[in-house]
Amino acid sequence: MKITRLSNAISIRRTGGNSTEAQLQAVKDIIRTVREDGDAALLRFSKKWDGAELANLRVSREEIEEAVKRFDPQLLSDLTEAADNIRKYHDNQKQESYKITEENGSYVGQRVTAIESAGLYVPGGTAAYPSSVLMNVIPAQAAGVSRIVLISPPAADGSLSDGVLAAAHILGIEEIYKSGGAQAIAALAYGTQSIAPVDKITGPGNIFVALAKSEVNGDVAIDMIAGPSEIAIIADASAYPDEIAADLLSQAEHDPMASSVLLTDNAELAEAVSFEVEKQLADLPRQSIARAAIDGFGEIYLGKTMEELIEAANQLAPEHLEIMTKDAVADAEKIKHAGAIFIGRYSSEPIGDYFAGTNHVLPTNSTARFSSALSVYDFLKRTSIIHYSEQAWQDNKEKIARLARLEGLEAHARAVESRQWEKESRK
Amino acid sequence: MKITRLSNAISIRRTGGNSTEAQLQAVKDIIRTVREDGDAALLRFSKKWDGAELANLRVSREEIEEAVKRFDPQLLSDLTEAADNIRKYHDNQKQESYKITEENGSYVGQRVTAIESAGLYVPGGTAAYPSSVLMNVIPAQAAGVSRIVLISPPAADGSLSDGVLAAAHILGIEEIYKSGGAQAIAALAYGTQSIAPVDKITGPGNIFVALAKSEVNGDVAIDMIAGPSEIAIIADASAYPDEIAADLLSQAEHDPMASSVLLTDNAELAEAVSFEVEKQLADLPRQSIARAAIDGFGEIYLGKTMEELIEAANQLAPEHLEIMTKDAVADAEKIKHAGAIFIGRYSSEPIGDYFAGTNHVLPTNSTARFSSALSVYDFLKRTSIIHYSEQAWQDNKEKIARLARLEGLEAHARAVESRQWEKESRK
Repeated sequence: MKITRLSNAISIRRTGGNSTEAQLQAVKDIIRTVREDGDAALLRFSKKWDGAELANLRVSREEIEEAVKRFDPQLLSDLTEAADNIRKYHDNQKQESYKITEENGSYVGQRVTAIESAGLYVPGGTAAYPSSVLMNVIPAQAAGVSRIVLISPPAADGSLSDGVLAAAHILGIEEIYKSGGAQAIAALAYGTQSIAPVDKITGPGNIFVALAKSEVNGDVAIDMIAGPSEIAIIADASAYPDEIAADLLSQAEHDPMASSVLLTDNAELAEAVSFEVEKQLADLPRQSIARAAIDGFGEIYLGKTMEELIEAANQLAPEHLEIMTKDAVADAEKIKHAGAIFIGRYSSEPIGDYFAGTNHVLPTNSTARFSSALSVYDFLKRTSIIHYSEQAWQDNKEKIARLARLEGLEAHARAVESRQWEKESRK
Repeated sequence: MKITRLSNAISIRRTGGNSTEAQLQAVKDIIRTVREDGDAALLRFSKKWDGAELANLRVSREEIEEAVKRFDPQLLSDLTEAADNIRKYHDNQKQESYKITEENGSYVGQRVTAIESAGLYVPGGTAAYPSSVLMNVIPAQAAGVSRIVLISPPAADGSLSDGVLAAAHILGIEEIYKSGGAQAIAALAYGTQSIAPVDKITGPGNIFVALAKSEVNGDVAIDMIAGPSEIAIIADASAYPDEIAADLLSQAEHDPMASSVLLTDNAELAEAVSFEVEKQLADLPRQSIARAAIDGFGEIYLGKTMEELIEAANQLAPEHLEIMTKDAVADAEKIKHAGAIFIGRYSSEPIGDYFAGTNHVLPTNSTARFSSALSVYDFLKRTSIIHYSEQAWQDNKEKIARLARLEGLEAHARAVESRQWEKESRK
């Protein structure tokens, strides 16, 4: 990996990954077709792109049971334990209703309720990750979403991944459909004969899925559209080069555009990590992906002081930040912007991807400056409640009318004053 | 107003208000120009579109003080009281940091912090509303945002509205710039020589402002892009037609595409409201706007039962919902989807626009199904914290590695296992 002296301004190298006009047009056409033809369109698209002749769009109870039977019991227990940890973490995310009552009898407040329905998109093939089923469904369940739907593209034989169905089974999700790409997003957003529309769509996907989510955004809610994965590691002389290299590569294997950055004040460590990355790359199954990511977006920055490294991390605002320093806990306190902070030697990033309980859907591309992990909050909504008593109205109507007229909104002023009428006529 | 029998499926008539390709291109060009030319571009655009020859982009302390001196003291006190109510309401919106610690010494948690900077766009001319300064700035202040910036297009004489400057003064906001339209949004998002960029942009605006916010979204955060204002009123025989009409018109005067809907089970009331709307329209200053809205998007729906009316309101998921029934409090409990609910005769909608304390930035176009009023939460971000102790790592590393390999991510598995190395080599 390239070793660069830390300059004052660094940022995650933005990935060009933009869509083409042709892709956007294709997605718009697909969405229109699904809105017009419904189920028939989904079946046609599955034949065309998944090579699957589907009898039904919905996964049957039998298919789920058979998948669970086929699934390794050890892995089922691992997934179940991970789900328990994720639930325990997310159950702490509470948003409270409240009500402020005045002596004059009026009150204002917010009523917090769950959105009614949510749909999770699960990519197909090698990207059909059971862990993303857990990470997307559990926050929605913790929020109290009553209807949760999964949709995922089938293999050519019409099946979905055993792991995905097993994860769904662990969570008690039974409404699962076979469809992928932009057509699946359109079906969730607008509904078809056999798929009722949902209020919010989450989950990762390819460029067509991302474009479709942007297109339907506003008609339904969507989660953030995530960019390539990122890891930054702050390490000093106390850290182990092979462990740093392994963690850098764990993100690099995700995507040829994934970004792996080391920030260190130790030149020997920098050299050793660079050496270890090459060594470990040599026998990685996903070597070509990791190689492309390391060559294209991998950086080792050499700084003078820990303060300089922390400042650089705050500039990066990375999705994942590991801190492997002798004073890791104290250094972590100084981090202002990161999706998730992994503190200390034993907190390897994949622990958060799978098991610790925190959510692995995290803000990328420096958006941790203003956005956050997927959470229970994303599946809640708030309704404002206003009740004015006659006394409260009496006490405040003139002020409110003045403020309305200040803004040139006479009908607003008259609306507040209109209650006057009765008092006069009833005298 | 047209009186229609309530059918099973009703929805807010969506307003066509779409942008043109030409408008989008113009906005993209403006953003590029601001990124290239900075302050010079802002000054050129102000000369071109505001007709203002600006000496400085930033409003001086003297300008603010003079505006406050010129401003009606009674209105200043009204605005101050409104600000106090808004602050009291929003101070209840808390999102808590938390930490879950295990006996093995590991912990996970979320750290809640405020975003660092926020920029509020305030439209010019008659739409320069002091109330939106209060509604956008106070949640950011309650969240703890340290830098809050206002930007607004100047009049031809280079001045900003006294009311806007007075509202900013009440809140202690002193960083205020003179620029409007897409160029102002670009300046907030990417910065210029004299304007540092912000992390989040909120505030209403015309189609160019809305398009610019969509364009910069992702590089910075934005608030929702609101559609035309909406009000729905559920009323029975106990309600007063003139008051209902006045409240319907208070939204109609906002925008020719504003939607005003009455839901009632009483035919006489329906007729009387229709009559009252015509009568009150006759001498409204903004008659032509209100007339267009009532004719284009005004509806009176006549239902049989209160349940039917409530179901219809839930289908509409309106921005504002008033309940003027004999059992208003109980009926309000049955509402699932609305931006804000105004309960009872004296809770006229403008009370929420200006004074009650709830936020007047609310979800439109039925998005109350899944989104909420502008709030303190919109100015907070959360960082996930993961610390695994050596014991926690020992206890769980095999499960985590199995889950990673299940997903074909070998480098993830090896990263977790890499800590093993030391133990062996140090034996």
